[in-house]
Amino acid sequence: MNLEKPKWPDGKKCAAMLTINLNAELFWLQIDPSCKDMPKTLSLGQYGMTRGVDRILSILKERGIKATFFTPGWVAEQYPDKLKKIKEEGHEIASLAYKHENMALLTEEEQEEAMKKGIEAIQNVCGVTPVGFRAPEGELTLDTLRIAKKYGMHYSSNLCDDDRPYQKDLENGETLLEIPIHWDNYDLPYFAFNYHPAFPKGQGRIANYTGVINNWKDEFYGCYEYGLCYVLQLDPAAIGAPGRIGLLEELLDYIDEFDSVWWTSGEEMYQGNTNEKRKERKMHALTNALKIINAFFANIVPIGDILWTFPQNFSWYANIPIIGSIPFAIYLLLGMGIYF
Amino acid sequence: MNLEKPKWPDGKKCAAMLTINLNAELFWLQIDPSCKDMPKTLSLGQYGMTRGVDRILSILKERGIKATFFTPGWVAEQYPDKLKKIKEEGHEIASLAYKHENMALLTEEEQEEAMKKGIEAIQNVCGVTPVGFRAPEGELTLDTLRIAKKYGMHYSSNLCDDDRPYQKDLENGETLLEIPIHWDNYDLPYFAFNYHPAFPKGQGRIANYTGVINNWKDEFYGCYEYGLCYVLQLDPAAIGAPGRIGLLEELLDYIDEFDSVWWTSGEEMYQGNTNEKRKERKMHALTNALKIINAFFANIVPIGDILWTFPQNFSWYANIPIIGSIPFAIYLLLGMGIYF
Amino acid sequence: MNLEKPKWPDGKKCAAMLTINLNAELFWLQIDPSCKDMPKTLSLGQYGMTRGVDRILSILKERGIKATFFTPGWVAEQYPDKLKKIKEEGHEIASLAYKHENMALLTEEEQEEAMKKGIEAIQNVCGVTPVGFRAPEGELTLDTLRIAKKYGMHYSSNLCDDDRPYQKDLENGETLLEIPIHWDNYDLPYFAFNYHPAFPKGQGRIANYTGVINNWKDEFYGCYEYGLCYVLQLDPAAIGAPGRIGLLEELLDYIDEFDSVWWTSGEEMYQGNTNEKRKERKMHALTNALKIINAFFANIVPIGDILWTFPQNFSWYANIPIIGSIPFAIYLLLGMGIYF
Amino acid sequence: MNLEKPKWPDGKKCAAMLTINLNAELFWLQIDPSCKDMPKTLSLGQYGMTRGVDRILSILKERGIKATFFTPGWVAEQYPDKLKKIKEEGHEIASLAYKHENMALLTEEEQEEAMKKGIEAIQNVCGVTPVGFRAPEGELTLDTLRIAKKYGMHYSSNLCDDDRPYQKDLENGETLLEIPIHWDNYDLPYFAFNYHPAFPKGQGRIANYTGVINNWKDEFYGCYEYGLCYVLQLDPAAIGAPGRIGLLEELLDYIDEFDSVWWTSGEEMYQGNTNEKRKERKMHALTNALKIINAFFANIVPIGDILWTFPQNFSWYANIPIIGSIPFAIYLLLGMGIYF
Repeated sequence: MNLEKPKWPDGKKCAAMLTINLNAELFWLQIDPSCKDMPKTLSLGQYGMTRGVDRILSILKERGIKATFFTPGWVAEQYPDKLKKIKEEGHEIASLAYKHENMALLTEEEQEEAMKKGIEAIQNVCGVTPVGFRAPEGELTLDTLRIAKKYGMHYSSNLCDDDRPYQKDLENGETLLEIPIHWDNYDLPYFAFNYHPAFPKGQGRIANYTGVINNWKDEFYGCYEYGLCYVLQLDPAAIGAPGRIGLLEELLDYIDEFDSVWWTSGEEMYQGNTNEKRKERKMHALTNALKIINAFFANIVPIGDILWTFPQNFSWYANIPIIGSIPFAIYLLLGMGIYF
Repeated sequence: MNLEKPKWPDGKKCAAMLTINLNAELFWLQIDPSCKDMPKTLSLGQYGMTRGVDRILSILKERGIKATFFTPGWVAEQYPDKLKKIKEEGHEIASLAYKHENMALLTEEEQEEAMKKGIEAIQNVCGVTPVGFRAPEGELTLDTLRIAKKYGMHYSSNLCDDDRPYQKDLENGETLLEIPIHWDNYDLPYFAFNYHPAFPKGQGRIANYTGVINNWKDEFYGCYEYGLCYVLQLDPAAIGAPGRIGLLEELLDYIDEFDSVWWTSGEEMYQGNTNEKRKERKMHALTNALKIINAFFANIVPIGDILWTFPQNFSWYANIPIIGSIPFAIYLLLGMGIYF
Repeated sequence: MNLEKPKWPDGKKCAAMLTINLNAELFWLQIDPSCKDMPKTLSLGQYGMTRGVDRILSILKERGIKATFFTPGWVAEQYPDKLKKIKEEGHEIASLAYKHENMALLTEEEQEEAMKKGIEAIQNVCGVTPVGFRAPEGELTLDTLRIAKKYGMHYSSNLCDDDRPYQKDLENGETLLEIPIHWDNYDLPYFAFNYHPAFPKGQGRIANYTGVINNWKDEFYGCYEYGLCYVLQLDPAAIGAPGRIGLLEELLDYIDEFDSVWWTSGEEMYQGNTNEKRKERKMHALTNALKIINAFFANIVPIGDILWTFPQNFSWYANIPIIGSIPFAIYLLLGMGIYF
Repeated sequence: MNLEKPKWPDGKKCAAMLTINLNAELFWLQIDPSCKDMPKTLSLGQYGMTRGVDRILSILKERGIKATFFTPGWVAEQYPDKLKKIKEEGHEIASLAYKHENMALLTEEEQEEAMKKGIEAIQNVCGVTPVGFRAPEGELTLDTLRIAKKYGMHYSSNLCDDDRPYQKDLENGETLLEIPIHWDNYDLPYFAFNYHPAFPKGQGRIANYTGVINNWKDEFYGCYEYGLCYVLQLDPAAIGAPGRIGLLEELLDYIDEFDSVWWTSGEEMYQGNTNEKRKERKMHALTNALKIINAFFANIVPIGDILWTFPQNFSWYANIPIIGSIPFAIYLLLGMGIYF
């Protein structure tokens, strides 16, 4: 799938994923653990859970978009109702480790512990097993990805070296699906602010909202033109402010203007990258080709009702057509000529 | 009052509060105490008192808006004339501790001392006792809020975990009204600048004025749409510059375009959150409901002049209606059906 | 002159001053003295002298504006030709100490030394004695201002506590005319950038040019509306870039749209603040009043040619009117009634 | 060539150079060598090589622009295919040392080593010998430039003290052609971002794309108006993002609107600055003058076909005209009168 022009399901022109990082107060506690006694600083992160999440959910519901929520296990435990609500509204719950650990600074054992506890907390609170992993703001090592794989993660969404999913070589004979992200398409680095502990460290100004939405639109536009996978990262404490939630709406409105965008989640992206799904997708491409050919020949060789059906599981799943006529066999060959 | 759609007095759609922090030179002295011998750095803060305050007052007077001025006791003592003027023009004076202390770094005793001295200075200079408290730029602990309560403060305006007032649990069986604030709606983080001592520490650029006013408008717009409480924080040294005072005017013009905004102060917000006031507000909602029903039935059962009156104390206070007719009793029941 | 609405010569509505700081490579050497062996970093400041100054001079010449160039003595010695050219084109040369010293960190003796050497270098290179002083980017103490006065400086342009000139109390029974400045109206903090040594320290982004020019316009507009003194600070290394010099032109075009702006230099501002000049200005106001009254009565009591003349020294200097008629005496009394 | 209005080949009004720095992951490794085990941080730089370079190349090909790619030897060795592709598409390969060393921190011997290895790697991978040198982000000393000259570099592109090429005095009796650069015209300082290791150090916000493209346009416009040499610096990891590559296209479209821009590379610029080329250019100016004169006299003294030809080597090379008529001799004298 790591082609210059990746092929998306149903012939879509580009893919789009909305990922939400439920950093909550852990973002601040990671910067300075002494924040634990500072209600003001904690409140900056808590805001995301008390107000931000609901605003995001309501917008997603209205538009029927399924997102991927990465949560540290600890946050799931602290805010079980919010997590259950997210689950109930049909979104994917993925793992953001346990307590927002900077994985690159941990030993292998500590990393395993964080991974395990993070997954278990999600299982306990939401009753689902996450299949995707993102490392908290900090860093990760190749070990982190190997551990993620070992604990059942089917994809990682951490690296920045591409703009479409690819199989990351774990240098142990295995690979893991990587869904790359980019700082530009993340709200926190533009908006997070506090005096003590200082963030950003140099106390740079909160970004101009108009500038940020324009950057995001430019990045989506580029992804669309190049047929890539646009992955937005949001923290409810940043995007959830009354004046910023509108940026999300504006961005979704903008994306709506483009035909042929495949809205997906990490899980669906993974499913679309299993061997089985890749085969299905090839068949689907075939049936699509046949539909076109059939429409073309319809005037010449009328065949009445078309003989295949398309039960759809997620947004892009197509069964093998049930074939039952001679002309069809001709179309089939023609179709293969076009597509392969 | 901590509902998803809070109810504001007189059925207003949202609340708006203008709060001014008289940091004066203390902002710089807190960053680096050696500034005390550096007239240039001190002058950055003094500007707010010599020029900025008057500009803000003149705009507020013109528009009939009452604001809340948070002042450190020390600033009240240094600039008694400005403080008296603020008081005389009908604004609320609230406490910003004594000498802009970072409350989180003080012992409980030191915090009490700062709280007491801050309140006394306001009493001495302005002849009023403040009922609201904001901690200087730094941080606070739960102790700070408990001490504020102990020293007679009826509300705090410090935390960032909500966008409407709520009763903060002090974890000692008591609560304190919290009127939350947000960094986005504060001028200092966008505009303050100096080389030595460096602020911002990383020496980021002074923000684009147009970008800032747009952020503020977006935040107000969001507060309005969601029916929240918009709280702007201003430092006269930042907003008071000749080229920035116009941003305040532009923002107020913008807010004026919206119907149904409840301009309030911290004190009024508190008064609207006492038990007594909450009861009054319920009765008021009732009479409003009745008015609507009455207008509806007026064609069918004419009852002449309506029998209640609305003496108004602040901007939102309503007496219990004097009832005197049978049809009225019917309306009453209907009204209760609508509102409860 | 420290009134809410200061009175400017010739009844002008506001004052405007262009001040240029010839920091040259000293800006970088002050940040990190080891730059002396780093040609790339030095080249950032040298650019201002090799290219920037000429571009500024050419614009000022075209528009007939006289500016004030603050120069460290060392820069005058290093770039004597540029300094002579500045002098020859009629601009004021003022002092920026000797080698861009942070005055607040020096002993009184060291400060005197820097002051003396700075003045002497200007005398040697340009043949003029500066009468104004600005401390390099760093800081100053009250001692610095006392030393400036002692060494013949008639004004300082360092503090930020007002937006019009005022007599600064030196707390030794003396005062010194202060022409305040503001960070917002300075190009360096918006544009200076380097990796090693890092500037700004936090490596914040070079500002959006459009945002900067808009801030400057807003500040001028405010100064105009309030009748203040707009003081722009420029470093030729910042404004002198091919793409930024246009910002200066755009700003000057903008200011040109406003009637009644008094373009002045530090020296002229000082001259307008001597006791003698203040008296003259009062008389000038009087004659202006009389002109208006005369025009008004002209139809009733024609008095032929008006009897006074206005030899003008700088841009605002007016002689005492020569009075010669009875009706004039009446006008005089009426005029005094209006103006005092 | 260091004139206020430099003369460009073919009478072009200004020069424009596109230079690309292939920093790849070395940018991050220089900030913090421990990144070598952090795949996320490395991926930020790798993105430039995996995706960014191809996007740039495709745009340059479409428009027929030849750029100069500065590469550390190590990057050439790591990404030989990309480097070969760059070479094959006709761009210049120049040296960015070996492993992105901060030259100012090395001993002379270490600098020589870095220079040598950098050049050799390019020779081995691309089969060409670079003639231009840029020091990695860090700094350089005069020694660096002397070493560059010693190892066969014909030009340096490092300093910021001018906005047109000039002969830099190496203070050892030699000079080296310097093609100056400016931070404003570089994408990295606007866009690079990471949490750990932090870049920018103060974590300032990613710049507004619209603001950046406007700065670049303003700088080009100024260079055009003043007839200077516009040098853009790009890092494929910054400009190569799907939403930023459009900025390059927008800038090139903007430049296309201007007539008479000389698109050049470092190598061509150097060739235009050899003594031989300077002589040729004078002759070329002469022939141009003659053409004008000839056109003017054509009606009076028709001379049939013009007798000279212009074989062109690079974009600006002109042979000495073959002269064969009396009137021509007159024109020649007239032409010399005009041009010299």
